[in-house]
Amino acid sequence: MNIKTASNLDEIFFPRNVAIIGATTQVAYPLALLRGKMRDRTFMVNPNYKEVLGKKAYASILDIEEPVDYVILTLPARYAAQAARECVQKGVKVIHSFTSGFSETGLKEGIEREKELISILKGKVRLIGPNCMGVYCPKSGLSFNPASTHEEGHIGVISQSGTFAQFFIHAGQPRNIKISKIVSYGNAADLDCPDFLEYMADDPDTRVIALYIEGIRDGKRLRSSLEYAAGKKPVIALKGGVTGQGGRVASSHTGALAGTGETWATMFKQAGVVQVEDFDDLLNAAVALNESPLPAGKGVSIITYSGGFSVVQTDMCIKAGLDVPKFSAKAVEELRKIVPVSGTMIGNPLDAWQLFYKYDDKDGTLNDLFRIITGEKGVHSIILQFDVIRFMLNMWSDKFEEYFDAVAQKVLQGCRYARESGKVVFISMFLDPFVENETERKYNLIFKRRLETEGFPVYPTLNDAVRTVASLYRFTEMRQRKLLKTGG
Amino acid sequence: MNIKTASNLDEIFFPRNVAIIGATTQVAYPLALLRGKMRDRTFMVNPNYKEVLGKKAYASILDIEEPVDYVILTLPARYAAQAARECVQKGVKVIHSFTSGFSETGLKEGIEREKELISILKGKVRLIGPNCMGVYCPKSGLSFNPASTHEEGHIGVISQSGTFAQFFIHAGQPRNIKISKIVSYGNAADLDCPDFLEYMADDPDTRVIALYIEGIRDGKRLRSSLEYAAGKKPVIALKGGVTGQGGRVASSHTGALAGTGETWATMFKQAGVVQVEDFDDLLNAAVALNESPLPAGKGVSIITYSGGFSVVQTDMCIKAGLDVPKFSAKAVEELRKIVPVSGTMIGNPLDAWQLFYKYDDKDGTLNDLFRIITGEKGVHSIILQFDVIRFMLNMWSDKFEEYFDAVAQKVLQGCRYARESGKVVFISMFLDPFVENETERKYNLIFKRRLETEGFPVYPTLNDAVRTVASLYRFTEMRQRKLLKTGG
Repeated sequence: MNIKTASNLDEIFFPRNVAIIGATTQVAYPLALLRGKMRDRTFMVNPNYKEVLGKKAYASILDIEEPVDYVILTLPARYAAQAARECVQKGVKVIHSFTSGFSETGLKEGIEREKELISILKGKVRLIGPNCMGVYCPKSGLSFNPASTHEEGHIGVISQSGTFAQFFIHAGQPRNIKISKIVSYGNAADLDCPDFLEYMADDPDTRVIALYIEGIRDGKRLRSSLEYAAGKKPVIALKGGVTGQGGRVASSHTGALAGTGETWATMFKQAGVVQVEDFDDLLNAAVALNESPLPAGKGVSIITYSGGFSVVQTDMCIKAGLDVPKFSAKAVEELRKIVPVSGTMIGNPLDAWQLFYKYDDKDGTLNDLFRIITGEKGVHSIILQFDVIRFMLNMWSDKFEEYFDAVAQKVLQGCRYARESGKVVFISMFLDPFVENETERKYNLIFKRRLETEGFPVYPTLNDAVRTVASLYRFTEMRQRKLLKTGG
Repeated sequence: MNIKTASNLDEIFFPRNVAIIGATTQVAYPLALLRGKMRDRTFMVNPNYKEVLGKKAYASILDIEEPVDYVILTLPARYAAQAARECVQKGVKVIHSFTSGFSETGLKEGIEREKELISILKGKVRLIGPNCMGVYCPKSGLSFNPASTHEEGHIGVISQSGTFAQFFIHAGQPRNIKISKIVSYGNAADLDCPDFLEYMADDPDTRVIALYIEGIRDGKRLRSSLEYAAGKKPVIALKGGVTGQGGRVASSHTGALAGTGETWATMFKQAGVVQVEDFDDLLNAAVALNESPLPAGKGVSIITYSGGFSVVQTDMCIKAGLDVPKFSAKAVEELRKIVPVSGTMIGNPLDAWQLFYKYDDKDGTLNDLFRIITGEKGVHSIILQFDVIRFMLNMWSDKFEEYFDAVAQKVLQGCRYARESGKVVFISMFLDPFVENETERKYNLIFKRRLETEGFPVYPTLNDAVRTVASLYRFTEMRQRKLLKTGG
């Protein structure tokens, strides 16, 4: 596939300047832009104010002394047409309409308003939206969230929902998400999902594309753009409205034709896109694809402190399409030398709870477990379930810092060793979101950051870790099938 | 069903005193018991110490001056037989063996050791375990966790896994779990799951039974005890090892025959027990059954601030066996009067994001939404997705406390109104476990506590809330089927 129809959207993501029409402190855009790189190139437009957040407010975009590239419409829908005409007159390149009240309402008035907007802009000004959050691009300074980080990353997000676009920003710090670009495109009256897919496919700053989509006007073009993008980098997708009722809701959300769940699943599969089942899976997979290599196969080894979790986690792996292979006799023998037999399970999963508390340098630490398991050919990913900090705090009290640091070193050594030998390493570290024990929280967060700094993804639940390995493995599977097909 | 074989276990849950054989500061029991009601009735036994945690240490249980009811074995397995003999001689009523190294090892030595233990105790002393955490009962002071609360509640937990037993305690504060009794019973060499089921079925302090099970020796007896318990109160169960590989791991964890996933599913269904799919579901359902009435049917109404979540959440509900019915024309008309048309979705799900930020007393608050929706006959449960505190903090800055309190009042009014009219009300309040924004955390926790204090269950994710409503509805369904059958 080599079609490319609208991928040169640099003007959209990297405008020279921005004007916010309808700027007030009641919407997020003025503050979001003033806090980033765009601060000296943002114009406020609002005839009712003299200034907004200390910046001069223009009565009309036509009053701005220089050319304007990018306009954000935040004024009520009934004024949108007039503002659009002024934008055409001014020669702006793109309008993002945060303003809603168009076709998504399902009302005649809204539908006509959208048609009018398009007829004013057609062939002159490109349109993002209406009814969407627009663009976040830390490299250029575009943003829809005043609390967003300015750190630049490599995950590209295309979302038909504004909330999910917001979530990717909000999850930035806690889930280690680093963004190249986000675009929330709402009703897609002009620029649509395929335009952004093709742009991000060619964007050197984007390594992974995460997609949330509810419906599409031009299915054929979507299919080819998905295929084009998936041929260049991993594309992971969540389709909203896969059930009958969900589809009905999707139609009334963005006005798009939703289609059946099966049609979409087939299209994603044929295009080489991995489809996930919920929003957490989308987020987790995006981070993992950015941080981790793909596993070479579906064999998972689980290192845990719990027999119960060994059982349940194995069920999870199997349900998710992974495998928990038996260890070789040699590995079992080696493990038996360092794991006490009592109250443990020596095999895969490996419940070696005593070793989680082993802080000395003698043989038989968590590091040794990684070393032995890494030697197993059938194991392609290792998940360490490390939920034990609360127990350590109880057990070690004033010796905690010292002992914990020693254990943390062992874990990191083990993780590094496994990764250097080509295994994928994930950590699950359970921390209840509503926990009020601040000490437990503090040390979990510290250790999480240490692991992430070295590039090991950390997930808050076992289920998250397992499902994310499964998402990654589906990319492996697709690549293997492709190699088989092409004889490569 | 009226069989009862071993339900008089009061001596186990309410012993007059406890002796810990092998007591050291290296195991949790001495501290756990000294911190609760059992503090003045706990004896330490260890020939290697003069005292443990300031309490006199006896060389043997035979040296204790008074009769002993309950013994906790924490010494190495090779000393267990001798300790058991002394317990028989002393006339103790029950031994809980935390000590492992028995049949669960799969080794000949361990299997023989378990047989020997049983032959020493048979007909004289009851045995919990070996290889388990034992009993937590805040009313009597038994505990295996020094950090456990002493608050008494009404959730009874029976767990073949020690970790899951621990998790119920650990989740106490964050998930609002209040326990009557927990028993972790490990290898079940003597007392087994049916004994505890029958006891908890008749226990007036227990209103809900949560069960984690991997396998059973006597399937027929399990079936009848499940049926007996489920006839008295809701029983919710997680079966570990439902997949082939998971079953293999379960066998090596507790040595029990796992059976196929289908056999178990059929047994639970026939007994009137609701089976859940993972540990979070078990926890969440237990809390909900304790706090909330059952929904009268499968109709769910969703109040949200997001079109994207409306779509995805509807998919979730349908997949979980629930229904998201359309609102009546009358309700839609009433909603249209107070929900702005622009950027919202007036229907079910209801995306009325502006109303989340409405703190004044004029018409059109969240409270009004609850009032209107409560009037819908097809709606049996209402889920409010309240993830907006982080946006409020940004938007309202120094007015936050005042405005937020006003919104919180509206929410509580609405929830109360819906509940008084017979609707089940759940709140999902997303808080990332790894979030480092302490202000966001603080206000989420404060609001969560306010809701919980009034008995409204709060879940950290939408998925948790939806799946829990689904678990509750499955009890409703079973009751309706039973009524149909009996013509009641």
